[in-house]
Amino acid sequence: MTDPASDVARAWWRTAIVDVAPGMIRIRGYPIEQLIGGVPFPVMIWLMLRGELPTDAQAALLDAALVAAVDHGPQAPSIAIARMTATCGLGLNGAVAAGVNALGDVHGGAGQQCMELYNAVADAWTGGVSLAHAVDTHLGAVRGYVPGFGHRFHPVDPRARRLLDLVEQAASAGAVSGRFAAIGRAIEAWLARRKRRPVPMNIDGATAVVFCELGFPPDLGRGLFILSRTVGIVAHAWEQTRQGERIKGPMPPQVGYTYEGPAPRSYAAGA
Amino acid sequence: MTDPASDVARAWWRTAIVDVAPGMIRIRGYPIEQLIGGVPFPVMIWLMLRGELPTDAQAALLDAALVAAVDHGPQAPSIAIARMTATCGLGLNGAVAAGVNALGDVHGGAGQQCMELYNAVADAWTGGVSLAHAVDTHLGAVRGYVPGFGHRFHPVDPRARRLLDLVEQAASAGAVSGRFAAIGRAIEAWLARRKRRPVPMNIDGATAVVFCELGFPPDLGRGLFILSRTVGIVAHAWEQTRQGERIKGPMPPQVGYTYEGPAPRSYAAGA
Amino acid sequence: MTDPASDVARAWWRTAIVDVAPGMIRIRGYPIEQLIGGVPFPVMIWLMLRGELPTDAQAALLDAALVAAVDHGPQAPSIAIARMTATCGLGLNGAVAAGVNALGDVHGGAGQQCMELYNAVADAWTGGVSLAHAVDTHLGAVRGYVPGFGHRFHPVDPRARRLLDLVEQAASAGAVSGRFAAIGRAIEAWLARRKRRPVPMNIDGATAVVFCELGFPPDLGRGLFILSRTVGIVAHAWEQTRQGERIKGPMPPQVGYTYEGPAPRSYAAGA
Amino acid sequence: MTDPASDVARAWWRTAIVDVAPGMIRIRGYPIEQLIGGVPFPVMIWLMLRGELPTDAQAALLDAALVAAVDHGPQAPSIAIARMTATCGLGLNGAVAAGVNALGDVHGGAGQQCMELYNAVADAWTGGVSLAHAVDTHLGAVRGYVPGFGHRFHPVDPRARRLLDLVEQAASAGAVSGRFAAIGRAIEAWLARRKRRPVPMNIDGATAVVFCELGFPPDLGRGLFILSRTVGIVAHAWEQTRQGERIKGPMPPQVGYTYEGPAPRSYAAGA
Repeated sequence: MTDPASDVARAWWRTAIVDVAPGMIRIRGYPIEQLIGGVPFPVMIWLMLRGELPTDAQAALLDAALVAAVDHGPQAPSIAIARMTATCGLGLNGAVAAGVNALGDVHGGAGQQCMELYNAVADAWTGGVSLAHAVDTHLGAVRGYVPGFGHRFHPVDPRARRLLDLVEQAASAGAVSGRFAAIGRAIEAWLARRKRRPVPMNIDGATAVVFCELGFPPDLGRGLFILSRTVGIVAHAWEQTRQGERIKGPMPPQVGYTYEGPAPRSYAAGA
Repeated sequence: MTDPASDVARAWWRTAIVDVAPGMIRIRGYPIEQLIGGVPFPVMIWLMLRGELPTDAQAALLDAALVAAVDHGPQAPSIAIARMTATCGLGLNGAVAAGVNALGDVHGGAGQQCMELYNAVADAWTGGVSLAHAVDTHLGAVRGYVPGFGHRFHPVDPRARRLLDLVEQAASAGAVSGRFAAIGRAIEAWLARRKRRPVPMNIDGATAVVFCELGFPPDLGRGLFILSRTVGIVAHAWEQTRQGERIKGPMPPQVGYTYEGPAPRSYAAGA
Repeated sequence: MTDPASDVARAWWRTAIVDVAPGMIRIRGYPIEQLIGGVPFPVMIWLMLRGELPTDAQAALLDAALVAAVDHGPQAPSIAIARMTATCGLGLNGAVAAGVNALGDVHGGAGQQCMELYNAVADAWTGGVSLAHAVDTHLGAVRGYVPGFGHRFHPVDPRARRLLDLVEQAASAGAVSGRFAAIGRAIEAWLARRKRRPVPMNIDGATAVVFCELGFPPDLGRGLFILSRTVGIVAHAWEQTRQGERIKGPMPPQVGYTYEGPAPRSYAAGA
Repeated sequence: MTDPASDVARAWWRTAIVDVAPGMIRIRGYPIEQLIGGVPFPVMIWLMLRGELPTDAQAALLDAALVAAVDHGPQAPSIAIARMTATCGLGLNGAVAAGVNALGDVHGGAGQQCMELYNAVADAWTGGVSLAHAVDTHLGAVRGYVPGFGHRFHPVDPRARRLLDLVEQAASAGAVSGRFAAIGRAIEAWLARRKRRPVPMNIDGATAVVFCELGFPPDLGRGLFILSRTVGIVAHAWEQTRQGERIKGPMPPQVGYTYEGPAPRSYAAGA
């Protein structure tokens, strides 16, 4: 059709990701049937988000980061919300949606914020300032906690150490620059000096190193975290469904909650 | 603590997926730092959902199915909803949650329903009835469309053919039984005879073959579809965010919609 | 525009609720500026859902039912989910969406199911069977609990008694038929006889009486419950936001959860 | 129970809104059975959010604002998302959740932003500066559009004029101060002078006047908008459900979308 209304309507939705015609589905230009069985799932994720295929070394680092963040137990609000939603009779789609929704700035945004910090330090460093000076400048301005460092539960986060080792191996092999691993380590050192105790990199800080090394923009960092954590949300929602409880609140009814409002009083209409 | 209230509270949330202690995270018993860089993401998905590790052949089939279902374009409600939500200023978590939520019985449930059909046929077949007879019995009862077969857009779904080939290769190598591929082909043949035109297997029918061959229960089929399609939802929400439009409705305002309600009338309070 | 593509597009979205043109908004045919300050909010709700204005007596009953269901405390999953989502940094829209989402068949559907039961009994009764016989027939088939009756917390639900009194006053004045109040009371009596203990009507059973008397279809019953409970969800999400906690799980970290999975084990890649 | 673990757990959830014991539900101290049939729904909303009962004049203004914002047609993303979700087979809870979720900073936040602007002007005015000067100071700093003023569709928003009239009547009667109506009018005048064309107050600007006059904090403004618009979302989701379409995309498939990605290309594994 070539009439103007149709053109207006067609221009309303534009995409460079996927093209579909009868009998044909192309992802970023590639026929889907060549990708199925041809590329692993993490490579497909990269292609969908970036538009081109990764190198093997890039794909391996992305793979490791996706594995690292899948789950941290049912005390995390995202997981608990999905489990509670499942007890309200919703299918997996509804339970998972409620869990994913909770991955906002506070519960799911530290990685993105950390990537912004790394990028700011990297820009200064590239501009000729020493790494130590760049870190000092940017962290001097940070109030409270530094996103990506410290954990209220783990003195050392076992995921972070392992991810950082993998980045450094890849950097030694020339597969990535290693610049962001260096920045992460420098921030860790700065914090240890300043706070006079270790404030080690956590999972958000470590995945931020990986995603920055791989060239992802910060807000896609949250997208990748969502893809990873959705695995845990699905697994927990499904486990909860099989446990069979109905309308399960946050704590047992016997434990209850604290009421802090007005003392009992009476309402009389028109009084 | 050993007091009774604490025991009551601790028994409220139970999981076999993940165990966390300071400095330690175990997934299904395995230290997370051994899995990071040790297993690919699809293997991690399997471990989270099933509790044990897959064989290489099982992992490869799961990998292919996850790749196959990532996206079918911005006309799908799940994708369009995520894109529209992104134009309302929400972060990726909110846009993705709205898209995932839409993957209910109608838009995301055909795979699950198809797995239930396959399992019912398989049970009858195992019970001694011939495959042809088992299919005839179960499809005779189906009204309207058969979940997993036919597509309103694709005469042949390129994803289905490819997935089925991979299953049959794996069956030839003895890695899976091939029973569900045979069931799928038998249903396809039954439908072609009955409808006097081809009603070929679609993506839902083909992923259902894969997931049944791999031993997943039907409702986890929806879980796996959600994990796959979430990749497309993230990619489209992110692309939309970068296009920069605000408060984008389903169609251009110039095109409008049809009002079918009462003619204009007046309200007078107390009249 | 009169071209065919535009017609196709315009026919895609059809509504009888609202018509909008520059400078003009009509709700069910009425100019919005006549309704603002002209009709109370519950009347507007009725007009939006039903298409015509209610009588004063109908509006008063709807008003009472909307007031009755707003809140039942932070142990309800819908409220707890909204509060937990708020601690993840989401705005009220995100927290409220997560809470509303949980009002599915189990947590928000008892009213709808009870309306279906009442309607079935009413149809039989209308068909000439005695009320007692109609109740006996329909409840004999119910396994387990009867939707709308009994409460795991309240021996008598104070909301139900009050709503039923209001319906009976309205029936005495000829404003509603009183048929569904009679059906509700008959079911209550049947249950007391059968179970040899009182199983009194709960909030879902009482709002179901109101909504059936007012002629709402059962699935709109859930819609009305959602409108009412959303008030509680907004109030709790907002209160939680002001309490200032971040990433608040379902129970304090000290209380923890129970891990029931495999004992610790080791993974060796390629082993 | 008086053991420490129970105390820790009970302190985890605290509320001043509702207290529940067997047979007893108190809202802000009042027994619920006194409120049912005793107070209208908008008064209940006020009590839930504010903790005390409003005067009749306050309740009337809140009522009018809640009526005003219920709906603006299926081109709004929140409404379209709910309708599309309904076509995916979800119940009203899921469809409404998806619609509410979209009421974020851009689509649902203008009222809140406008309240912040009014409050800033009011603070300056209270501090001794003239109203004209206070407006000039605060709007001089605003880049782009001023939240609450102008509408891309309505040259004059019929809802705004009506709401403002009601506020001014209430101010004449001494029921509210009228300060925020004056601020709104002053901003409107400032914009007309500056832009050399009318940029009249819209629904967000007018409800912001009402909510500020009534003493609501700005972020509860979004909460009240959500409560109002949820009525429209429920009505549209329900209407869509009855239209019976399945998996309805944003535009008819015939109209399609524009693909802007790479030209067709081939992928060869291992190539």
